[in-house]
Amino acid sequence: MTSELIRVNEIFGPTIQGEGALIGQPTVFVRTGGCDYRCTWCDTLHAVDSAYRDEWCPMTPEAILMQIEILSGGRPLMVSLSGGNPAIQPLGDLIDLGRGEGYRFALETQGSLAKDWFSRLDVLTLSPKPPSSGMATDWQKLAECVEAAGPDTQTVLKVVVFDEADYAYARDVAERYPGLSCYLQPGNHTPPQAETSDSSIDMTGILERMRWLVDRVTKDQWYAATVLPQLHTMLWGNLRGV
Amino acid sequence: MTSELIRVNEIFGPTIQGEGALIGQPTVFVRTGGCDYRCTWCDTLHAVDSAYRDEWCPMTPEAILMQIEILSGGRPLMVSLSGGNPAIQPLGDLIDLGRGEGYRFALETQGSLAKDWFSRLDVLTLSPKPPSSGMATDWQKLAECVEAAGPDTQTVLKVVVFDEADYAYARDVAERYPGLSCYLQPGNHTPPQAETSDSSIDMTGILERMRWLVDRVTKDQWYAATVLPQLHTMLWGNLRGV
Ligand code: SF4
Ligand code: SF4
Repeated sequence: MTSELIRVNEIFGPTIQGEGALIGQPTVFVRTGGCDYRCTWCDTLHAVDSAYRDEWCPMTPEAILMQIEILSGGRPLMVSLSGGNPAIQPLGDLIDLGRGEGYRFALETQGSLAKDWFSRLDVLTLSPKPPSSGMATDWQKLAECVEAAGPDTQTVLKVVVFDEADYAYARDVAERYPGLSCYLQPGNHTPPQAETSDSSIDMTGILERMRWLVDRVTKDQWYAATVLPQLHTMLWGNLRGV
Repeated sequence: MTSELIRVNEIFGPTIQGEGALIGQPTVFVRTGGCDYRCTWCDTLHAVDSAYRDEWCPMTPEAILMQIEILSGGRPLMVSLSGGNPAIQPLGDLIDLGRGEGYRFALETQGSLAKDWFSRLDVLTLSPKPPSSGMATDWQKLAECVEAAGPDTQTVLKVVVFDEADYAYARDVAERYPGLSCYLQPGNHTPPQAETSDSSIDMTGILERMRWLVDRVTKDQWYAATVLPQLHTMLWGNLRGV
């Protein structure tokens, strides 16, 4: 089998998924390099900015799966594909290979690129970016992503919320897709500097914005929403590789 | 309709569910009074110890549902029945009434008493108590609870883990029910004194035990487990009514 190479920023775990629909579940992360967005508050610049391109390793699906198997001790679990924007990478063969060994796959993307292999994912998290990111949403592309995932993939929405404008955006996104679960996540004002391994976080601020968001949602009687913090940030700060 | 009265300790919300399978989801809590257990680390003594019995209000299902509707603004959501041990109370009529209005019901109990109305719940969380609680598990009763819930109720396991003995117990429980999702929750060493509204918590200790538990589970390759902290304790400390 000749596969295209995948640009990998880091592979680590097992640890728990710290966000969204799979929160608390053991997983191995495969973070790919490269992103078509430049969010103001991006917390994974090392997987976005091409200045770090030298750190991204082109790997075959076979090599990636071997690394996953070493980390998991050969025992299948959920693999989380993240980035950057992992939808840029040719991940279809990796998913097929891994599924053949019993692994399951979840992917998170902003929804700017639809791929036919989305339908072979177990979970697709679409996290369109709110106004505070400085990015504009291409609604047509987002719709194509939902469409590409199809009925066999569990598709969910996740929106990061820093302020009222972001909250209004989240409501709009959820209203467009009443059939999809929507996860709200308070924004983290203290993303790490890419060149440091600083693990300090603004815990007080995170908890405050989380309480505000819970209050906002319940006052609005938006009972279909789920509000969850970034658990891994609370547990490990902004350290990479945990 | 003549219903038996339900002993209610408190009704509050909407807030988010802070634990287990429904973490992050908006809910109204109905906490009933009375428990057949006396766990060493019980964090709801005010709903357990009969010294607080005077604070428990005997209510009809109709009165409870009215209170839920006021809190939720009449918009159906998930109602969380907790205690104490809510299985002691005659909750069947409340569930039927509420479901008729579109409300859904989740209940958490240690699994010492099975009721036929478990089958009318949307979610049943069985949280058998580990060795550190000082309580002994009646495995026959636990099995009866699973049986009573039947196929239409989503039944999950939740085990609080303070130490290695608790962890071994959690593994045993999960092995008995391979078909049920198992949620592990690090124990909180700082339960509130029932007579105070002290909200101080040992955040450092909670995070430390959470990291230990994640490490324990992943080292063991126990990938079917889900590890989640008590989010509400992290957000609001041990304050009651939030
Ligand atoms: S889409 Fe994600 S990875 Fe890309 S810049 Fe925005 S936050 Fe960073
Ligand atoms: S079963 Fe629950 S409510 Fe009863 S004593 Fe134990 S911790 Fe407290």
